[in-house]
Amino acid sequence: MIEHDVQIRVRYSETDQMSYVYYGNYASYFEVARVEAFRHIGFSYKEMEDAGIMMPVLEYKTKYIKPAKYDDLLTIRVRIKQKPGVRITFDYEVYNEEKVLLTIAETTLVFINSSTGKPILPPQEFMSYFEKFYAS
Amino acid sequence: MIEHDVQIRVRYSETDQMSYVYYGNYASYFEVARVEAFRHIGFSYKEMEDAGIMMPVLEYKTKYIKPAKYDDLLTIRVRIKQKPGVRITFDYEVYNEEKVLLTIAETTLVFINSSTGKPILPPQEFMSYFEKFYAS
Amino acid sequence: MIEHDVQIRVRYSETDQMSYVYYGNYASYFEVARVEAFRHIGFSYKEMEDAGIMMPVLEYKTKYIKPAKYDDLLTIRVRIKQKPGVRITFDYEVYNEEKVLLTIAETTLVFINSSTGKPILPPQEFMSYFEKFYAS
Amino acid sequence: MIEHDVQIRVRYSETDQMSYVYYGNYASYFEVARVEAFRHIGFSYKEMEDAGIMMPVLEYKTKYIKPAKYDDLLTIRVRIKQKPGVRITFDYEVYNEEKVLLTIAETTLVFINSSTGKPILPPQEFMSYFEKFYAS
Repeated sequence: MIEHDVQIRVRYSETDQMSYVYYGNYASYFEVARVEAFRHIGFSYKEMEDAGIMMPVLEYKTKYIKPAKYDDLLTIRVRIKQKPGVRITFDYEVYNEEKVLLTIAETTLVFINSSTGKPILPPQEFMSYFEKFYAS
Repeated sequence: MIEHDVQIRVRYSETDQMSYVYYGNYASYFEVARVEAFRHIGFSYKEMEDAGIMMPVLEYKTKYIKPAKYDDLLTIRVRIKQKPGVRITFDYEVYNEEKVLLTIAETTLVFINSSTGKPILPPQEFMSYFEKFYAS
Repeated sequence: MIEHDVQIRVRYSETDQMSYVYYGNYASYFEVARVEAFRHIGFSYKEMEDAGIMMPVLEYKTKYIKPAKYDDLLTIRVRIKQKPGVRITFDYEVYNEEKVLLTIAETTLVFINSSTGKPILPPQEFMSYFEKFYAS
Repeated sequence: MIEHDVQIRVRYSETDQMSYVYYGNYASYFEVARVEAFRHIGFSYKEMEDAGIMMPVLEYKTKYIKPAKYDDLLTIRVRIKQKPGVRITFDYEVYNEEKVLLTIAETTLVFINSSTGKPILPPQEFMSYFEKFYAS
């Protein structure tokens, strides 16, 4: 299993008038977390996209347990629990500085050939990386 | 069952470099849809909040079937399928002008007393409205 | 002079924990206002972009006089005071329902050929429209 | 003069379909920069707000010289050139990793007593800090 932690400080722009992080703003935290997890294992999402593969989100689920607040230094823990194929699923947990679990979430994305618009397998070097971890 | 349609035109700010509506931006469309559904049946979310009840989101799930694009005039169809209690669940469907279904989603919110931070039942006049629809 | 009014209702996502519309969110209101002003005079920004002309913003200035609040039904008044060339300048005023002036702003955009990245004059039919208004 | 640099990596959510950072999204970068400049000199904007002082933006001007792009690691250089009073002005420059200047901006904010809604001078310890720098 691949696991990576990313820290994000809550911006004022991300709060709403309940003084909570607006429920829609977590999506960009999860995007940052999965991109940084990719970078951590040696893959650049930007380069993959420049090379003609894009990764739209197919499914997104989240549970809000406690609110994140302004200026909180959040830890986003992201996990890839299953070997990716045409699809890849990420799990997320959001913690504040007191290690309190605030939010859990899951996203499923698909690898798409930008030219054809068709689903494809991820690049070979990406797959090879995962072979090491999920080999029988 | 309560059902209401709201139209929202996609803003440039809501697109990303895939030329899709960014997956995190649907959350604000669903917020608009549920607030307008409330207004349609005679309730103002703003007034409810001013009166000391707030409604944070507990759970949010969405499936992205096809992308919404810049300048699309979307129809957000929102439904309240079950009589609300301390919690209320909304279902959503997003259609483009060609009546193609782009996205489905569900959110569960909780009524909270702003002073105590505790869950409470919605205001009586709100409940009365629903009694009519979900009566035995 | 071309003048057009657009109504926008403030979304919860656009508020911050001061209970003001976050100062950065007006930019998308102004974007909507200028796109709707274009639509009003018969031009679609989307079609122009599809035809290979894009319009990045060069300059943006705004003064915040009074805060816009959640659920306010704002009127954005947009004006094109000068005949456009390679550049086009829009002026904006934001009013609430009580006709109180909340914000004033100005943006200057440039017409760019998407293929070459170079500034160009706007399409002829666009220019012709303005000839009528600003002719000597 | 007080000067501080902050690094911000561009999120996918912040791009638009021109593949530029949307012009409205710089406002939150500048917010982060000024809050981090405050933290750097020993002041927490959050604590100031908790203590009853808020700082809405009065004026915001920006010039877009070159676009910031997805995944760029931006440096936001923020300067406080004049001793603050009831108002405080910040200047900003945005650079990419190649040290190319992308954007310049200026914001003026006002210190407000949250209870009365009236402008006030900043806290004494804040002012004392600036006395050192701007003393005659």
